[in-house]
Amino acid sequence: MIIAVIGNSSCSPEEAKLAESVGELLAQRGATIICGGLGGVMEAACRGAKSRGGLTVGILPGQDSSRANPCVDIPVVTGIGEARNLAVVKSAQAVIAIGGSYGTLSEIAYALKGNISVIGLNTWSLSRNGREDDSIIRVRSAVEAVDKAISLAKRRKNYEIASLRSQ
Amino acid sequence: MIIAVIGNSSCSPEEAKLAESVGELLAQRGATIICGGLGGVMEAACRGAKSRGGLTVGILPGQDSSRANPCVDIPVVTGIGEARNLAVVKSAQAVIAIGGSYGTLSEIAYALKGNISVIGLNTWSLSRNGREDDSIIRVRSAVEAVDKAISLAKRRKNYEIASLRSQ
Amino acid sequence: MIIAVIGNSSCSPEEAKLAESVGELLAQRGATIICGGLGGVMEAACRGAKSRGGLTVGILPGQDSSRANPCVDIPVVTGIGEARNLAVVKSAQAVIAIGGSYGTLSEIAYALKGNISVIGLNTWSLSRNGREDDSIIRVRSAVEAVDKAISLAKRRKNYEIASLRSQ
Amino acid sequence: MIIAVIGNSSCSPEEAKLAESVGELLAQRGATIICGGLGGVMEAACRGAKSRGGLTVGILPGQDSSRANPCVDIPVVTGIGEARNLAVVKSAQAVIAIGGSYGTLSEIAYALKGNISVIGLNTWSLSRNGREDDSIIRVRSAVEAVDKAISLAKRRKNYEIASLRSQ
Repeated sequence: MIIAVIGNSSCSPEEAKLAESVGELLAQRGATIICGGLGGVMEAACRGAKSRGGLTVGILPGQDSSRANPCVDIPVVTGIGEARNLAVVKSAQAVIAIGGSYGTLSEIAYALKGNISVIGLNTWSLSRNGREDDSIIRVRSAVEAVDKAISLAKRRKNYEIASLRSQ
Repeated sequence: MIIAVIGNSSCSPEEAKLAESVGELLAQRGATIICGGLGGVMEAACRGAKSRGGLTVGILPGQDSSRANPCVDIPVVTGIGEARNLAVVKSAQAVIAIGGSYGTLSEIAYALKGNISVIGLNTWSLSRNGREDDSIIRVRSAVEAVDKAISLAKRRKNYEIASLRSQ
Repeated sequence: MIIAVIGNSSCSPEEAKLAESVGELLAQRGATIICGGLGGVMEAACRGAKSRGGLTVGILPGQDSSRANPCVDIPVVTGIGEARNLAVVKSAQAVIAIGGSYGTLSEIAYALKGNISVIGLNTWSLSRNGREDDSIIRVRSAVEAVDKAISLAKRRKNYEIASLRSQ
Repeated sequence: MIIAVIGNSSCSPEEAKLAESVGELLAQRGATIICGGLGGVMEAACRGAKSRGGLTVGILPGQDSSRANPCVDIPVVTGIGEARNLAVVKSAQAVIAIGGSYGTLSEIAYALKGNISVIGLNTWSLSRNGREDDSIIRVRSAVEAVDKAISLAKRRKNYEIASLRSQ
């Protein structure tokens, strides 16, 4: 199971703590973490995962792996800049968003377009034409985020296998 | 000057009418239109532009130009799927968003990340951590949208030329 | 009709002259030129086209249009680096390769994979397992290159329309 | 250390055997394998690696992981089609090409452009303007390919670390 953790490359100490807890819990539950591979929330989540023996994948925007944070096990060098945001979420069975700015918003949008669940911790809220869009599943703690992400990811995984079998 | 018009590939008659007016007005003001090249808002904007002799560019997600709407003059076939959303907005000096779903939201996010002005007609509203993000410039009519877009695009164009000269 | 002209961003005076002639002839025949938007062969082809009133599209790798050569009418800013090579050739009904290094080689490969004709002027030769691959159509002059490109592009255009009608 | 193995998604039994041996040997030497994630040479290399406890990464072109071959541990879903070829080679410190058609050729071109060593087994030969380009390092066996790839990858790794330190 692969879960994406998305958020800013520079973040507050509170966000970093939250991301690190999310990383720890995901690793304990056996999930591989995928992220954008840079600093801030991404680095904190990877650090948490590594502290529990987890596996981490960083989908990097640039031309080489030198900018990957030191807790990325598998740096994927895309060379396609911010268009790599699509790959970060599409590779996951569920997405946990922590805080985040416009890059994170583009990832949330891509995930929702692809029917991939987004669990939000202090992140964006959306409304369209005055009506709230409640597609982002709001939670209040790292534990709740990881519980939701894993149960939704399992459901998606089963759905994908069923689709494949019916082809 | 290149202005992006973004929105859904299927849209209401009201949105289509709005998009067509935006296309007409942009063409009258001499702007080239760039869009995702498909139907709905994109097609209506291109149709409006063509009715006034404008030039239209469609940045297509797929493998060939056959899905371009019939009012696209220059179909750019990217082959990179929804990652082409980045190119739609980055090629423009300003962006007009009309309605729109998650694909449009990813384009708004990319534009705001790149400091490209987004003018919104009945489109997404954003807030972060309970605080409203008012980066999208809200307008109520096609005329107002085009006025804003062109004046902001001119400012950006001058800024880019100044940056270039100072290098 | 859109024809891609591909080649190095720095080139010899002979290659530049050849590319300029190709651009002139394509514009005279009514074709739009698409290229990678930078210097060298790309710039020379665009300059030739503009001298005959042609239309030029540059598919740029970077983050803004400031690096487009001055003869590009429509700078498309992809933000996806060298992955934009795919879009350069996929947007064309035929490709003319003039000289070129590894970037050009990747474009030739993408074109051939997509069954888009490649006409070569002093460019790469390919062989596989000791057997020559003669997919690149070799010509010796700008006139011959443009003649071949336009007749093959017409055939492809008709083929695409036929495919579309039979869907 | 990450080594890319590239080649066709359908291949001869001889090529599959070669790719499987390459996968086994890379895993025994502790290298992670990255590939395009599909069948043929890619699947054979992953199968070899898994039989020796190696780790395999598949950079997929499509929209979901259902087309990944069953021996891919980490399916990265890019959604960018053949533009993902860039990411396959840029993520590696060296590339082993086995046979291959035009997709493989685009990957060889991208690798050589990025100064990433390409080791070739029965693959493309290149010449430019009648002069042979000997950038592809030709070998005759899986053992020789893996030896070369690992020694060149180590050199590159050291070079990257040195570049990083001098920044």
